[in-house]
Amino acid sequence: MSALQYESLGFTDIIVRLEDGVAILTLNRAKQRNTWSISLVNELIKAFDLFNRDDRVRVVILTAEPTAPSFCSGADISRGWGGMFSEEVQHEGPHAHRDTGGLVSLAILRCRKITIVAVNGHAVGVGMTALQLPFDFRFIWGGAKLALPFVRRGVSPEAISTYLLPRLIGHSRATALMLSGATVSPDSPLLQGLYHEIHPTRDAVFPAALAFGKELAANTSQGSIAVTKGLLWRGADTPEGQFLLDSRAIQILGMSGDAEEGAKAFKERRPVNFKETLSKNLPNWFPWWTEVDVKHRKAKL
Amino acid sequence: MSALQYESLGFTDIIVRLEDGVAILTLNRAKQRNTWSISLVNELIKAFDLFNRDDRVRVVILTAEPTAPSFCSGADISRGWGGMFSEEVQHEGPHAHRDTGGLVSLAILRCRKITIVAVNGHAVGVGMTALQLPFDFRFIWGGAKLALPFVRRGVSPEAISTYLLPRLIGHSRATALMLSGATVSPDSPLLQGLYHEIHPTRDAVFPAALAFGKELAANTSQGSIAVTKGLLWRGADTPEGQFLLDSRAIQILGMSGDAEEGAKAFKERRPVNFKETLSKNLPNWFPWWTEVDVKHRKAKL
Amino acid sequence: MSALQYESLGFTDIIVRLEDGVAILTLNRAKQRNTWSISLVNELIKAFDLFNRDDRVRVVILTAEPTAPSFCSGADISRGWGGMFSEEVQHEGPHAHRDTGGLVSLAILRCRKITIVAVNGHAVGVGMTALQLPFDFRFIWGGAKLALPFVRRGVSPEAISTYLLPRLIGHSRATALMLSGATVSPDSPLLQGLYHEIHPTRDAVFPAALAFGKELAANTSQGSIAVTKGLLWRGADTPEGQFLLDSRAIQILGMSGDAEEGAKAFKERRPVNFKETLSKNLPNWFPWWTEVDVKHRKAKL
Repeated sequence: MSALQYESLGFTDIIVRLEDGVAILTLNRAKQRNTWSISLVNELIKAFDLFNRDDRVRVVILTAEPTAPSFCSGADISRGWGGMFSEEVQHEGPHAHRDTGGLVSLAILRCRKITIVAVNGHAVGVGMTALQLPFDFRFIWGGAKLALPFVRRGVSPEAISTYLLPRLIGHSRATALMLSGATVSPDSPLLQGLYHEIHPTRDAVFPAALAFGKELAANTSQGSIAVTKGLLWRGADTPEGQFLLDSRAIQILGMSGDAEEGAKAFKERRPVNFKETLSKNLPNWFPWWTEVDVKHRKAKL
Repeated sequence: MSALQYESLGFTDIIVRLEDGVAILTLNRAKQRNTWSISLVNELIKAFDLFNRDDRVRVVILTAEPTAPSFCSGADISRGWGGMFSEEVQHEGPHAHRDTGGLVSLAILRCRKITIVAVNGHAVGVGMTALQLPFDFRFIWGGAKLALPFVRRGVSPEAISTYLLPRLIGHSRATALMLSGATVSPDSPLLQGLYHEIHPTRDAVFPAALAFGKELAANTSQGSIAVTKGLLWRGADTPEGQFLLDSRAIQILGMSGDAEEGAKAFKERRPVNFKETLSKNLPNWFPWWTEVDVKHRKAKL
Repeated sequence: MSALQYESLGFTDIIVRLEDGVAILTLNRAKQRNTWSISLVNELIKAFDLFNRDDRVRVVILTAEPTAPSFCSGADISRGWGGMFSEEVQHEGPHAHRDTGGLVSLAILRCRKITIVAVNGHAVGVGMTALQLPFDFRFIWGGAKLALPFVRRGVSPEAISTYLLPRLIGHSRATALMLSGATVSPDSPLLQGLYHEIHPTRDAVFPAALAFGKELAANTSQGSIAVTKGLLWRGADTPEGQFLLDSRAIQILGMSGDAEEGAKAFKERRPVNFKETLSKNLPNWFPWWTEVDVKHRKAKL
C-alpha cells in the first residue's frame, strides 16, 4: 500500500491527493452539477476502501470545487428513475437491488479513519444522504440549500439515511425533514446539531475543514480512532454489554505503544508523535462485530 | 371506504371532517377540559384506524377548540386512579391491563398517513404523551403549560412515552422531563427539537397546521409517506440491515406510477399530481415487520 | 439499613451525609486534583449501592469541594496507564479486565433513586464520563473546562460513555466530542442538551443542585422514580413491547398507596406525603429485565 499513487489510479469523477496525513477527495463532475453516476459511485467506493487500508491516511475530507453549481444535486432523473436499476434487478426482482447511495454510505461508514465532509454548495437527495450523513464531521456553507425531497418525488429516502439521521439528531427532527421534504438552510432548527461548523462563504468551507483535519491527523492515534468509531456505531445494546466491550478496548489500547506515547507526551507537555498503524498494530479482536454480508448472489434477502 | 361519511359515525367526544385531503379531528370535551374518557379513547382509535385505510386522507390533524380551557388536561383523577382499570384486570391481575393511552398511541403510530397535532392549549399527562408524542409534526401555542407529572402523582409515564420521548429528543432531555415532573413552556430548552412550530396565540396554531398539512397533502405520495414512516420507526438495527430494507423500498417505489409522475413533474417544472393510493398500489412487501399482538386473551404477557 | 451511619463507614476519598432525603457525596481528594484512584472507585461503588438500598435516600447528589483545583481531572497517568490494570489481567489476558470507570457508571446507573451531579470545576476523562454521563441531572459551572481526550492519548473512551453519550445527546454531537478530543465549555453547541443548569460561579452549582434535589425528594414517589428510570433505560425495542411494559407498570403503581396519596393530594390541592419505600412496596415484577453478569470468574467474555 505504501507506494500507492492515487493520482495514477485513473479516477475521472473524483480527484484524490494526500497532504499531511489527510486524503482530500474532490468531486469532479462540476459540468453535471456533481450529479450521481455509476462511475462516481464506483470511484467513491474504491477510494474509501483504499483510505481505510492506507496507513498514510489518518483523515479523509470529501468536498467539491466551490465553483461547481452544486456540491451535489442528487440523482439525474431527467430520464426517470429506471436508470438507477441494473438489468439483473429487472430480471430477478426487487430483492436483487442494491442501492448505490447505500453502497457509498457503507464504504464511508466502514472507513476506520476520521471522515469529514466540506459541503461548499447546494445539496439535494443523495448529496444530503450518502454524501453527508455517514461522515464523522460535517462542515458547510451557510448559504447552501438542502433538501431530502423523496416523498415529493414518489420514492423513499435511501443510502441508509433513515437509520443515520434519527440517530444523529433525533427522531423528531429527522421525521420532520424526511416527511416534509422541505428545502432548508444549514441554520434551520431542524438541522441543529448536524453541522460541526457553518461558514459564511463557499470558499471558506474547505480550508476550515482542512485545517481541522490536519490538526486531528497530527494529534490522534489511528488505533484509538478506529476503536472509538466502532464503540460508537457497533456497540452493545445494554450498558453491561458496552461495559464488557469498552473494558476490553481500553485494556488492549492501554498496553499499546500509542498509549505509552500519549502518557509520555502528556507528562512532558509536548505534542504526541503516534507511530502505530492499523495494518501493523490493530489487535485481532477488532472488529468485534459481524458485518451482515449485503452482496446479492441470486439469493433472496 | 370511499363513501364513508365521518359525520354520520355518531362520534360524541370528537368531531371529524375532511378538507382537501386533510382529516381534521377536533376534541369535543371542552366542558370537561378535554380530559381523558373511555369514549374518547374508543373514538380516537376508531378514527385513526379509518384514516389509515381511507384513501382520501393524506394528512391527519388533531386539535381542540381554542376556546376550551385546555388542549387536554389528562386523566380525571378526582375519584382516584381505579376508574382507569377494567373489571377484567381486577379479576385476572395486572398482566391483563392494556393502558388506554398506549392504545391511542399505537393507533396513531400505525396510521400510515402524515399526522400533525395542533396543541392550542395547556396539556398535562396523557395530553402530553398519547396526544403529542406519536405524531409526525407538533404545532403549539407558545403560552401552553406542559407537564408530565407522573412521578409527582405516584404513578409512571404511560402511552409508550418512555419509548418515544428519548428517541424524539434524546435521553438527556427526556430523563429530565420525566423525573422532574416539572411544568414547562414550549420554548423550554428541555423541549428543544420537539415542536415544529410555536405560535404566539392559541388561535394561530390550527390555521398554521392546516395550511402546512394541505400543502403536504397536495404534494406528497401516499406510498412514499407510508414507506418512509416505516423505515424511520420500523427499521433494522444495523446499517447493513437498513441498507437491505431501503434498497428494496426504493427499487419498488422507483418503479411506481408516483415515481414516474414525480420525475415527470420535476422535469416539466410543474406541481405533482400523485394518483396512487395505499389500498391499490402499496406493494405486498409492506409492512416488512411483524407487529407484536398486544391484545389480551386471558394469556399471561 | 435504617440505622446506617454513613459517617462511620470509614470512607477516606469521599464524604457522605444525609439531609432531608438527599444523600450528598463529596469527592475528598482535592490535594490530588480529585484524580481517579482504586480507593475512590471502591468507595463510590459502595456508596451508590447503599444509596440504592437505603429507603431514607430519595435523591443523590455528587459534587466536589468548589475550592478543589478540579472537579475531577481524570486518571493520573504520570506513571503511564499500567497502574489501571490489575495483576489478574496481566496473567490471564485482556478478557479479564473490568474498567474501573465502567464499574462506577454501572453502580450509578443501577441506583434506583434520582441522581444529580454538581460539576463545580474542570472535568477531564473519567471526570466527564463516569462522573457525569450516568446521572439523571447534570448541574455545572459555566467556566468549567471539559474534555474527552482519549483519542489524543492513544486509548479509547471508557465507563460506558460510548453507549451513554450518543443516547443522551445524539450521535452527531457525541461523535464530534469523542473523535476530536477537543476541550470545550458547558455552553458549547456540542454539549447542548447535556446540562440541566449552567451557573456563572463555582460556588453556585451545589446549592442550586441541592435545592432542586430537596424539592424532588419531598414531592416524588420512590416507586414512580424507580419504575420510570427502568422504563427509560431498560425498555423494549418496539412500541408494542414498551406498551406491554408501561401498561403493567401503571396498573401496578396505579393500585399503590403512593398513587392514592398522589390523587388525594391533587384533589385537596396540598403537597404530597409519599410513604411507600422500595424495600417494602416495590412489586416483585421489578426489575423486569435481566442484567448481564459482568463479573470476571476466570471465564472468557
